[in-house]
Amino acid sequence: MDGDRQGSAERPRTPFSRRHLLLGGAAAGLGASALVGADLLAGRGEPPAPAPSPAPAPEEPDGGETVPFHGPHQAGVETPPQAHANFVAFDLAADVDRERTRRLLTLLTDDVAKLSQGDAALADSEPELAYVPARLTVTFGFGPGLVERVAPDAAPSWLRPLPEFAVDRLRDEWSDGDLLLQVCADDPLTVAHATRMLTKDVRAFGAVRWVQAGFRRARGSEAAGTTMRNLMGQVDGTVNTAPGTDDFERIVWDGGGNPDWLRGGTSLVIRRIAMDLDKWDRLDRSGREESVGRRLADGAPLTGSREHDEPDFDAVTPLGFPVIAEFAHIRRARTDDPAERIFRRAYNYDLPVTGSEGQDAGLVFASFQADVDRQFVPIQKRLDELDLLNEWISPIGSAVFAIPPGCEEGGFVGETLFDA
Amino acid sequence: MDGDRQGSAERPRTPFSRRHLLLGGAAAGLGASALVGADLLAGRGEPPAPAPSPAPAPEEPDGGETVPFHGPHQAGVETPPQAHANFVAFDLAADVDRERTRRLLTLLTDDVAKLSQGDAALADSEPELAYVPARLTVTFGFGPGLVERVAPDAAPSWLRPLPEFAVDRLRDEWSDGDLLLQVCADDPLTVAHATRMLTKDVRAFGAVRWVQAGFRRARGSEAAGTTMRNLMGQVDGTVNTAPGTDDFERIVWDGGGNPDWLRGGTSLVIRRIAMDLDKWDRLDRSGREESVGRRLADGAPLTGSREHDEPDFDAVTPLGFPVIAEFAHIRRARTDDPAERIFRRAYNYDLPVTGSEGQDAGLVFASFQADVDRQFVPIQKRLDELDLLNEWISPIGSAVFAIPPGCEEGGFVGETLFDA
Repeated sequence: MDGDRQGSAERPRTPFSRRHLLLGGAAAGLGASALVGADLLAGRGEPPAPAPSPAPAPEEPDGGETVPFHGPHQAGVETPPQAHANFVAFDLAADVDRERTRRLLTLLTDDVAKLSQGDAALADSEPELAYVPARLTVTFGFGPGLVERVAPDAAPSWLRPLPEFAVDRLRDEWSDGDLLLQVCADDPLTVAHATRMLTKDVRAFGAVRWVQAGFRRARGSEAAGTTMRNLMGQVDGTVNTAPGTDDFERIVWDGGGNPDWLRGGTSLVIRRIAMDLDKWDRLDRSGREESVGRRLADGAPLTGSREHDEPDFDAVTPLGFPVIAEFAHIRRARTDDPAERIFRRAYNYDLPVTGSEGQDAGLVFASFQADVDRQFVPIQKRLDELDLLNEWISPIGSAVFAIPPGCEEGGFVGETLFDA
Repeated sequence: MDGDRQGSAERPRTPFSRRHLLLGGAAAGLGASALVGADLLAGRGEPPAPAPSPAPAPEEPDGGETVPFHGPHQAGVETPPQAHANFVAFDLAADVDRERTRRLLTLLTDDVAKLSQGDAALADSEPELAYVPARLTVTFGFGPGLVERVAPDAAPSWLRPLPEFAVDRLRDEWSDGDLLLQVCADDPLTVAHATRMLTKDVRAFGAVRWVQAGFRRARGSEAAGTTMRNLMGQVDGTVNTAPGTDDFERIVWDGGGNPDWLRGGTSLVIRRIAMDLDKWDRLDRSGREESVGRRLADGAPLTGSREHDEPDFDAVTPLGFPVIAEFAHIRRARTDDPAERIFRRAYNYDLPVTGSEGQDAGLVFASFQADVDRQFVPIQKRLDELDLLNEWISPIGSAVFAIPPGCEEGGFVGETLFDA
């Protein structure tokens, strides 16, 4: 197939500018600190540039927006979530050793660097589809099988399948994998094209194990900073650390106990959470609100009036029952231990179903945290024991990946592992 | 499930205005005449209102935009194509007779009228998901089985499976159906929610036969009026009639030979066209351009310099060969007969595939035309005989639906069929 590498077409001049970057709806609500990834600030360490004041001309398409690829961290973690995602996991072939893994990562890095900036991949068979980057990011994740091939002793202790939880109904076809590519963009055609190009890169090295396609609200559909809703209608992700804060640094990037090669990296847990929406339909509104501990209308805790109000777990009803039930999701998810926090970046999924009932829908739960065992597992254990929501949701897939740091121009994602 | 019809929640005040309607990126390039569907002009027959001049405030979310539901024609035909679509076909149960069909259509009409205006459906289990209409339209199509139940002699002559074409590799699971709902919006969560609500409406009356999910560029990704590209990278749909023109009226709405109940209606042909993208990869750029007769870079005919230049089918190379090959797609699709024209409104599809090769991708081809036999079939016959593109594409699904006219407030879609 390499015989036809006709695709390295020059990118034609486009009317796109990158000025949108600091103006885009999806980013605007997060404050300049969230935008450290922006290429306007590529010389990291500089103070954030003041946002340009004129509003974008309405005729300027959004699709030209880019997220910088090179840097100390990979893109697609701090990046305000794009509307569409493909999480693609690969099994590497048995004969893919350390050197072939290096070749694969070099090839992928090169193509991602190009595609994310709106340029055609090296062997791009449809280069014109690359010219709308739409904030494309591709984040590499390494499973145990990849680390084993490159530096057998370098795996962080948490890089293994999660412990079994009682609620789990895991299926192989949605679990594990040697290599992950998290492909996100605001445009579904961009995601489709990038996924195809990168999947073709991997073909000589392995096979696709699973693809989880996900979506959130379209770019610009809602006011910037609106917390997403999942397909159960819940406001999902209210308590989340914000990129650019010290909190975020500590939760996501500060991997104190991690091996050196992961400095600037983190971990990613992906859980495919199936929702039994037909069963959920049989629960009335107040039952739904009790199961979570938040109001459906605005996501406010049952003891508060606004989404971001702090829940009062001690509040009781006139009859003396807790307002937020003992088994409510937000009570079970909460901890007083500041170590047990994660950064969620989830997507909805909804696959076509035929017949007269049922739905194949749910959440591609994705969370980044410096240490899976210390941060993610304790939360999941508490939820596993007593979360009311477990009545309606089942994890059917689970995977853990090490997210290596970013790379500079001329380098490749994962290079630090080869020095480990 | 009806026991929990708790969903008729009042729609909360939202900051959305409908002012966007004449300003939206997707519509801006089509000229005011294309916007007759807009609710600003709901008193049809009035001259188009002048577009308001101030640009939309950047903080105003796009998701509040609505397309009016009531009117002489159904929405979702003239509507500038939204970014996402679910084409959902249903088989009606054997016991669904004329009266139950009426009940079903009344129920669906009521819910679509609400959802399309950003209000919760009658039994909306997740009303909050309804508040972002994002130009939602739901277009009803009737297969032979539905018409047969209501008014056996009222079917137009073309309401039947298309004749067999040599290139067809049709599969039952992607073909035919009694009732179609074409659910389109710019937001994927809106499409998912509307699809679920309407599918639940149908459950007591039948089963989902197939769902074809499709996408185009995201709203605002590209400049308004940009012709879509398909997953082969081709500019797809250059020669298409434009809503609001006399041409469009004739091609889509003027069903001279159709039964009276279809006045204001039309027909819809849906063909699921699988693309063999791996085989397509083996063709170089000039081969790809020759197969279509257009340049990949900009969609210009090989004899012209701009996308909308008229192809010169008589032009020859210095060696005397035709510049646009005899078997090129655009030559085969073209006709001198003004009757043989259609209005295309297609979507891409791309389903996840595991393993080390292959792709389940292609086009959900959708075309509206007043008369399938007179307009669509002759074109498809010519393409079937000698289209070069047939090397890389195979129709794997095919369905024909009558698209009834729209209805006014208090009526329901399909009511004219009950008077036929």
